[in-house]
Amino acid sequence: MKKYIAEFIGTFVLVFVACGVAAITGCNGEANASYLLTALAFGGVIIAMAYSIGTISGCHINPAVSLAVFINGGMDKKDFIGYLAAQFAGGIAGAAALSAMIGTGMGLGTNGLFQNDIIKSLLIEIILTFIFVLAILGVTSKPEYSKVAGFVIGGSLTLVHLMGIYFTGTSVNPARSLGPALLMGGTALNNVWVFIAAPLIGGAIAALVWKYIRVPAAENEQTK
Amino acid sequence: MKKYIAEFIGTFVLVFVACGVAAITGCNGEANASYLLTALAFGGVIIAMAYSIGTISGCHINPAVSLAVFINGGMDKKDFIGYLAAQFAGGIAGAAALSAMIGTGMGLGTNGLFQNDIIKSLLIEIILTFIFVLAILGVTSKPEYSKVAGFVIGGSLTLVHLMGIYFTGTSVNPARSLGPALLMGGTALNNVWVFIAAPLIGGAIAALVWKYIRVPAAENEQTK
Amino acid sequence: MKKYIAEFIGTFVLVFVACGVAAITGCNGEANASYLLTALAFGGVIIAMAYSIGTISGCHINPAVSLAVFINGGMDKKDFIGYLAAQFAGGIAGAAALSAMIGTGMGLGTNGLFQNDIIKSLLIEIILTFIFVLAILGVTSKPEYSKVAGFVIGGSLTLVHLMGIYFTGTSVNPARSLGPALLMGGTALNNVWVFIAAPLIGGAIAALVWKYIRVPAAENEQTK
Amino acid sequence: MKKYIAEFIGTFVLVFVACGVAAITGCNGEANASYLLTALAFGGVIIAMAYSIGTISGCHINPAVSLAVFINGGMDKKDFIGYLAAQFAGGIAGAAALSAMIGTGMGLGTNGLFQNDIIKSLLIEIILTFIFVLAILGVTSKPEYSKVAGFVIGGSLTLVHLMGIYFTGTSVNPARSLGPALLMGGTALNNVWVFIAAPLIGGAIAALVWKYIRVPAAENEQTK
Repeated sequence: MKKYIAEFIGTFVLVFVACGVAAITGCNGEANASYLLTALAFGGVIIAMAYSIGTISGCHINPAVSLAVFINGGMDKKDFIGYLAAQFAGGIAGAAALSAMIGTGMGLGTNGLFQNDIIKSLLIEIILTFIFVLAILGVTSKPEYSKVAGFVIGGSLTLVHLMGIYFTGTSVNPARSLGPALLMGGTALNNVWVFIAAPLIGGAIAALVWKYIRVPAAENEQTK
Repeated sequence: MKKYIAEFIGTFVLVFVACGVAAITGCNGEANASYLLTALAFGGVIIAMAYSIGTISGCHINPAVSLAVFINGGMDKKDFIGYLAAQFAGGIAGAAALSAMIGTGMGLGTNGLFQNDIIKSLLIEIILTFIFVLAILGVTSKPEYSKVAGFVIGGSLTLVHLMGIYFTGTSVNPARSLGPALLMGGTALNNVWVFIAAPLIGGAIAALVWKYIRVPAAENEQTK
Repeated sequence: MKKYIAEFIGTFVLVFVACGVAAITGCNGEANASYLLTALAFGGVIIAMAYSIGTISGCHINPAVSLAVFINGGMDKKDFIGYLAAQFAGGIAGAAALSAMIGTGMGLGTNGLFQNDIIKSLLIEIILTFIFVLAILGVTSKPEYSKVAGFVIGGSLTLVHLMGIYFTGTSVNPARSLGPALLMGGTALNNVWVFIAAPLIGGAIAALVWKYIRVPAAENEQTK
Repeated sequence: MKKYIAEFIGTFVLVFVACGVAAITGCNGEANASYLLTALAFGGVIIAMAYSIGTISGCHINPAVSLAVFINGGMDKKDFIGYLAAQFAGGIAGAAALSAMIGTGMGLGTNGLFQNDIIKSLLIEIILTFIFVLAILGVTSKPEYSKVAGFVIGGSLTLVHLMGIYFTGTSVNPARSLGPALLMGGTALNNVWVFIAAPLIGGAIAALVWKYIRVPAAENEQTK
């Protein structure tokens, strides 16, 4: 149960703070200070949460990450469902708290289609989630990286935002997208399926690629 | 005694440098370079101080952090009072030194109410301090994180500034707020109680949540 | 074979994401947000890839790095050729994928001559590659740095971009330059030899300087 | 001898790249992208050099750092003189190489007085050097911090630039100031004594404060 509370808190913070920064700084895809502030906020939440709630739940705070971990045998079915429920609930609560603070006039950091093109929007989200989840699976596969993993994962989330904000605002995380879309409604809610489906597909591909490409621990020692 | 000197130096540097950057760059909540420079300066002070004076006092340099440590049994009453005295004195000295360098025409990085709304200002400071102190309690709970803790805490302080500068300028630290308010007087001093009370409340909540949610060391090993 | 796949993926991501950020943010050498976003994106790719595919191939994703490693006896001839093939193929694929997403109207992050001056362009690329590869050879020479190496190398790549974007857009990597140049053609393709030759020269010089300057492990212990 | 070559290379890179970024981005103390790019470049050089030439010479690349190390008994007189000679020579060579690339029309990142006020300029440089050198002495005093020391020192150098660029452009390093001043001449050269004297004073104060405040290793264990 504590693990689910931890995932709830973490996803709440992700949406409240990072979607919050996108909203209050007026992030709209133009290359300005807001673009960078938003990208840094998403990565920063991972750093703050990975070493606190991460010690309890692993700090997935993202259904695409949990799916990849589940595919690679890192968690059982019950926990997978519990994590997803906590993440979506945390994302909705975070969006609700954010709208209580600032209203909805500046948006809530919702995601949007790139040039009204569903295919390109799906593709960019699949590719960016693939990169992000591959980094996570890689860095968590070696115990000696445990101290720096939060920084690697946070840095990778900032990275995919540096690219993705221009296209879709960057989801790579269904729970981060659903909360703000539910609170905003309208177009954001109509398109939110893109930002639920694509990250799950990208995360699953990363899990399968990693399963094939990773070097078994024993072989790893040999090639050193 | 050396611990109190260390806390004095650290809080002096926090206010002189980070509130200084807010003042000299004209940080006013707009999403521009100054916003980012200020957020990075607060986190940067933690990195610079955590590995120097932190080896002596733990580098709290924040009464809300000391309160959380005190609640969770990490320091005795005498040290708690000594730390707070050193932190407030350091913050006042830092603000005085800053005003000696630049006067008060550009402000001294004081905090202000969000939309003249005391409730929202209290809430945002409580939530941001909760996030910040939770990160601190988490990362300092595992000895293997000791090498990266300064970066986690500095990154978390930058994170809460990315969100909070828009609202209140971000306190999350009573000693950081009192010094500049005393030197500036007026509205800043009238409202400073918000930035003393809210961080202490947020820090205390983080301490209690962490006490409940943390995984005992033994159980932690099992779940790995 | 897995090593070559890993290098292909890494170089694909480098060009798709980092050259992509340069293109979508309109990076043109002026000191603005785009300049910083681009510099951070190049470094960020290293952080994301070093701890994932880096565990398989070492994450060179750069012929100049592979050349330096080859000169210092760190890889055999067959792997050297395989790495280069995978890197150039990945860079071309990344540029093709990028142009499929955004077209070529905003460019693809190609490199260009500084003031139409081939000598200065060669010199700046040689010096910056020397700095970058020296940092790589240094940090990978001590096993105890393995946990932080990805951050050192990523930070160093961001650093040389902070300097080099103004001059040439910064190559320091033949595979990063060839892909976008092939897709764009014209002047970019005519000048691409500069951005293939100079990084290889700079990397080779770094390898030779490091071979001379490095302290043997035994001597290192003594001087401590 | 290799140590002196290492210090020469490191200080060359510091001036060529970081003073170079200040020059090419037009850094003039205004809170804009250039301000941040310059602050990041100075810190980035430390990260790139600390893990390469740092394994040979310790990567002081700063007479104020060498003075503090010398005062605290960390190096002998012969090395102290050799380091300073290599650092000043590297700084001059870096400035000469930079002027060969870009001329002197945009400056070479020289330092200047704050409001033509020598006292305030001395004071800000003394305080900022004190902070910077205190961070260095602290992080290098505990062997377990050796992996992260380059990041702590680089982050601290970025931090003091976030504050100091507004005032003097930030020296905290006599070798970084002398090279550009010699190449530029005029006012920069007339005032350069401030940026030689103040960093040495600040570094010496940090050494003395640290000598008093540091906790002996044995006592350190007890208080844990």
